[in-house]
Amino acid sequence: MVLARRPAGAVAATDFAFRDQPIPEPGDGQFLVRNHWLSLDPYMRGRMNAVRSYARPVEIGAVMVGGAVGEVIRSRHQAFRSGEFVVGPFGWQCYAVSDGTGVRRIPESALAHSVYLGAVGMPGVTAYVGTLDICAPQPGQTVVVSAAAGAVGSAAGQIAKMHGCRAVGIAGGPEKCRYVVDELGFDACLDYKAEGFHAHLRAATSHGVDAVFENVGGAVFDAVLRRLNPFSRIALCGLVSQYDATRPYAIKNAARLLVNRTRLQGFIVTDHPQRWPVALADLERWVASGRLKYRETVAHGLENAPAAFIGMLHGANIGKQLVRLV
Amino acid sequence: MVLARRPAGAVAATDFAFRDQPIPEPGDGQFLVRNHWLSLDPYMRGRMNAVRSYARPVEIGAVMVGGAVGEVIRSRHQAFRSGEFVVGPFGWQCYAVSDGTGVRRIPESALAHSVYLGAVGMPGVTAYVGTLDICAPQPGQTVVVSAAAGAVGSAAGQIAKMHGCRAVGIAGGPEKCRYVVDELGFDACLDYKAEGFHAHLRAATSHGVDAVFENVGGAVFDAVLRRLNPFSRIALCGLVSQYDATRPYAIKNAARLLVNRTRLQGFIVTDHPQRWPVALADLERWVASGRLKYRETVAHGLENAPAAFIGMLHGANIGKQLVRLV
Repeated sequence: MVLARRPAGAVAATDFAFRDQPIPEPGDGQFLVRNHWLSLDPYMRGRMNAVRSYARPVEIGAVMVGGAVGEVIRSRHQAFRSGEFVVGPFGWQCYAVSDGTGVRRIPESALAHSVYLGAVGMPGVTAYVGTLDICAPQPGQTVVVSAAAGAVGSAAGQIAKMHGCRAVGIAGGPEKCRYVVDELGFDACLDYKAEGFHAHLRAATSHGVDAVFENVGGAVFDAVLRRLNPFSRIALCGLVSQYDATRPYAIKNAARLLVNRTRLQGFIVTDHPQRWPVALADLERWVASGRLKYRETVAHGLENAPAAFIGMLHGANIGKQLVRLV
Repeated sequence: MVLARRPAGAVAATDFAFRDQPIPEPGDGQFLVRNHWLSLDPYMRGRMNAVRSYARPVEIGAVMVGGAVGEVIRSRHQAFRSGEFVVGPFGWQCYAVSDGTGVRRIPESALAHSVYLGAVGMPGVTAYVGTLDICAPQPGQTVVVSAAAGAVGSAAGQIAKMHGCRAVGIAGGPEKCRYVVDELGFDACLDYKAEGFHAHLRAATSHGVDAVFENVGGAVFDAVLRRLNPFSRIALCGLVSQYDATRPYAIKNAARLLVNRTRLQGFIVTDHPQRWPVALADLERWVASGRLKYRETVAHGLENAPAAFIGMLHGANIGKQLVRLV
């Protein structure tokens, strides 16, 4: 699945094109992977633009970037053997050739392979680093997590809870909010689409907000700024409400950052390679023990990846959005 | 000089009232100070509002808060003796009684007493902490300083220069900009009131901006956000353009904080008491050696403090704004 053209505002299915190509042959020091699971993540929206951000844009006509789990089916690489399952940057395609860069072997465990794209993968590590290293949760504090039903947010709030915090989620619609509270165990979840959101936010954060794990941005984020406590922390992880915006939402409450001596840290999880091993080990243990819960929304077949991706950008999924390829 | 009423938008001279009162008598463990120099600082604008910020608002009818330098003229306090010069939170008044809380003795030195309210006082320490601890300047990097001709900004840029940075100031009007470059030694200073400000900003920051010492906020700050480099730092020290605003300026470029993994830290220098001794020692040494330059704008007489304060909020001063009382 290649990028056919750059989106003008909202992503359309016609921004992608499906191409049938021969299965490539691995060269010396390479291996061939058959992808079983493709990960869909909000950051991919940024790669569709021509603007250089923290990573290069995808070229027109090039395969869309993305993490995937697959099986090594042919190898001329010393470290990877046929039959092994691996997770890596294999892109939106059924087969990929890799030289091993950015590839991890999936351990033999009782966990489903797909979890290595979610709770025990990039989104889980993102939640881990943002929550522990930036939000720095202290027992009894209130942590607000936006996109709380998503792959990152759902983990962030649960990790904050493990550290003794009150976790307040924000999500779109009653079904997601029920999931966040009833299944994930957040203390509250606010439906930003519902009447009375601002009053609900005030009530759910009656002692103010000590940390924010921000995935969405826009007016909802601006409302949360009004609730900040002194010495609060903001992990600025994503701004999914803004990715399609031709005119960005303008933040009115920036003065709260000064008055409250807030620390706001923009972050990208790939900047923290030293944290991945310990994060993955903790996350795997928590998932295995049932302490960290997750859910998946699964589309089937590469041809359905664009629609699933567009749906995710609009909040159609609960938990990790995947595409099953095999 | 007391707060007569809370400002509605811009501060007016009639928001203050001058009161003639008997000189107070120090009680046991107290001393009486005759103020020689009163410091005027932008933070005082916040104290005039009823809104609780990081400090309590001044009550209507109460003496305006403020740092001052004075002479101890009567003492019933063990640690302070008549004839000593001290700096402390003595307020907008000619005489003050103190129990020593927040008071420092001015060392015997060749420096003018007034400098302990500026370059070797709270504004200097603010510049020191914000520049060294938050902006964390690395040799060869570009640091942008707004209100660069003010008491804090002028020191911040010079400290960044001492650490091998390119210092780019922003100030209002050609006279201030000339002062910032010619006398303070910044590499450039941009007049935000001039035509072509955005083009000048781009040209002066052709390698992007690695750190921002922000005193002003508003549209100029928003423009600087567009110039941020990856892993940039923002010391959010003040938002003087916003203090009178009934409708705050809304920030359009917050997404740059995410893309560049910027750290923004709101800070108030009084939260960093452990840094004051080393900062004051360094600042005093730098001023004594001529390495750190400063300028003062002096009003005369307590009755002229309101007009000088209003002028400062609108950028009428260069360097530290003082009121000479004796």
